Amino acid sequence: MTTLRRVTLDVLKPHEPSMLAFTERVAEVESVDGVTASLIELDQEVQNVKITAEGAGLDYDAIEAAVDGLGGTIHSIDQVAYGEHVVEERRTLQDG
Amino acid sequence: MTTLRRVTLDVLKPHEPSMLAFTERVAEVESVDGVTASLIELDQEVQNVKITAEGAGLDYDAIEAAVDGLGGTIHSIDQVAYGEHVVEERRTLQDG
Amino acid sequence: MTTLRRVTLDVLKPHEPSMLAFTERVAEVESVDGVTASLIELDQEVQNVKITAEGAGLDYDAIEAAVDGLGGTIHSIDQVAYGEHVVEERRTLQDG
Amino acid sequence: MTTLRRVTLDVLKPHEPSMLAFTERVAEVESVDGVTASLIELDQEVQNVKITAEGAGLDYDAIEAAVDGLGGTIHSIDQVAYGEHVVEERRTLQDG
Amino acid sequence: MTTLRRVTLDVLKPHEPSMLAFTERVAEVESVDGVTASLIELDQEVQNVKITAEGAGLDYDAIEAAVDGLGGTIHSIDQVAYGEHVVEERRTLQDG
Amino acid sequence: MTTLRRVTLDVLKPHEPSMLAFTERVAEVESVDGVTASLIELDQEVQNVKITAEGAGLDYDAIEAAVDGLGGTIHSIDQVAYGEHVVEERRTLQDG
Amino acid sequence: MTTLRRVTLDVLKPHEPSMLAFTERVAEVESVDGVTASLIELDQEVQNVKITAEGAGLDYDAIEAAVDGLGGTIHSIDQVAYGEHVVEERRTLQDG
Repeated sequence: MTTLRRVTLDVLKPHEPSMLAFTERVAEVESVDGVTASLIELDQEVQNVKITAEGAGLDYDAIEAAVDGLGGTIHSIDQVAYGEHVVEERRTLQDG
Repeated sequence: MTTLRRVTLDVLKPHEPSMLAFTERVAEVESVDGVTASLIELDQEVQNVKITAEGAGLDYDAIEAAVDGLGGTIHSIDQVAYGEHVVEERRTLQDG
Repeated sequence: MTTLRRVTLDVLKPHEPSMLAFTERVAEVESVDGVTASLIELDQEVQNVKITAEGAGLDYDAIEAAVDGLGGTIHSIDQVAYGEHVVEERRTLQDG
Repeated sequence: MTTLRRVTLDVLKPHEPSMLAFTERVAEVESVDGVTASLIELDQEVQNVKITAEGAGLDYDAIEAAVDGLGGTIHSIDQVAYGEHVVEERRTLQDG
Repeated sequence: MTTLRRVTLDVLKPHEPSMLAFTERVAEVESVDGVTASLIELDQEVQNVKITAEGAGLDYDAIEAAVDGLGGTIHSIDQVAYGEHVVEERRTLQDG
Repeated sequence: MTTLRRVTLDVLKPHEPSMLAFTERVAEVESVDGVTASLIELDQEVQNVKITAEGAGLDYDAIEAAVDGLGGTIHSIDQVAYGEHVVEERRTLQDG
Repeated sequence: MTTLRRVTLDVLKPHEPSMLAFTERVAEVESVDGVTASLIELDQEVQNVKITAEGAGLDYDAIEAAVDGLGGTIHSIDQVAYGEHVVEERRTLQDG
């Protein structure tokens, strides 16, 4: 049985709750060990935020529910890592 | 007898199953220790995803079967590493 | 119960107090272990400063109060990290 | 008596055998501990591949024979390392 | 009680004393463990120098006095670090 | 008595002997622990190669003799390191 | 009493003595543990060389004398480090 160890999401969130409260809520999801959120850009309505969560067995549905519950939407799943450890991706000659 | 220790694939996958379910399925292949998938780009029909799998002796056919079974196609094999350990490629003066 | 471990702020501050006094005051907030402030740019009225604070359980409100108390304003929250450890964000193929 | 510890080759190979089978065959050469192959580019006839092999005393002729035996040709030898250990090249002010 | 652990200054100094004598003098300030100075640019009158000082509890006033005493002026304070350890700033998506 | 610990040379060599034989010969020089050679560029007559040799006390004359003996010429000495250890050069604000 | 631990110089030297002999001579200065010299550029008359010397207490006058004695001139002092250890400079947001 494999487990989800890291997920990076592109999220659109309203200005309220703040990035702090938003990230704190995601960090409180049972399976999450840590979450880092970075501001990509913002306009009058929304903030575009990059969220990276790590844990030994992340419960994605609970993370998604937390984001939804705060009025956010997951715009895209940018990176996921399953397995016994996180495989660090390396640049190959095919990466632009 | 040498073994496959890391493979990086350029994969085209339908929107469903999600990148999560897709990557989880590949990570469940017997010989796979870990898989990281990154979104390269997406359009209305497909997602172009970079998949990096690591293991002590990866079963490539089983990985390919998992990708096929989920409706994906391996667009290209971008990097492979065989042997007792993974040889980390270094930039040479010939790399653009 | 999760905790705030690192926060990076974009702050506008008057020329007085100096960046030294300003940063010292933020570093004196009870929950703060360390603070690094970098000058982004300055004009005749204000200094635009990037402030990164770390601690085992940062009290954001106290940090905000310290900034306000010194005549500064938090222009944006650029990055936050909650959890048992700081999750280091990695570049993905989606980062410009 | 010095030994070859790492060699990086620019190889042109037919589409068949696959990069997997090709790299596996090179990795099976007696003196090779590990091989990483990266796709540089491909067209309808051939794949241009960067191959990096490491070992305590690489048998270059056997590597070359393996490449030839699979229908490949060594377009250029991009980097070689002889000696008691691999000397890691560093950028100098003369590198473009 | 927090302490100043690192400060990076943009300093304008006359050609005399030399960068050596200038940096040596700053390094002799009681609370300074080490100082690195780098030449940014120079013209006929002045040298523009980047000075980075580290210590367990830097006495900024004494550093400033040393710079002044040598005919230099602190053009700007570019970075300061207070606390139990130096917080290493990380690039965020907001850095140009 | 100081010793030469690393030297990086820009060498022009004929196509024969190959980069392998050429580098092997340099690595066989008594004082050389290891040599890495990288192809910079080649034309019909010559190969331009960057050679980095390391050892506890490199005999430069013997290295030069080996290069000459193989029909090569040292176009320039790009970097040398003498002393008890190799001093790693760092970028300064003066490097382009 | 503080000491000079690293100095980086921009030096103009005649073609003779060679970069080897030149660097060897500087490395033989009593207080010098190691010296790395890199070729920046050269023309018919002179070589422009970047010299980095390290030691527990470098005698700058002796280094300068060695350079002068070999027909070289110190074009500029690019970086100096005084103190109990070498303070590694970090990029700040003010570096171009």
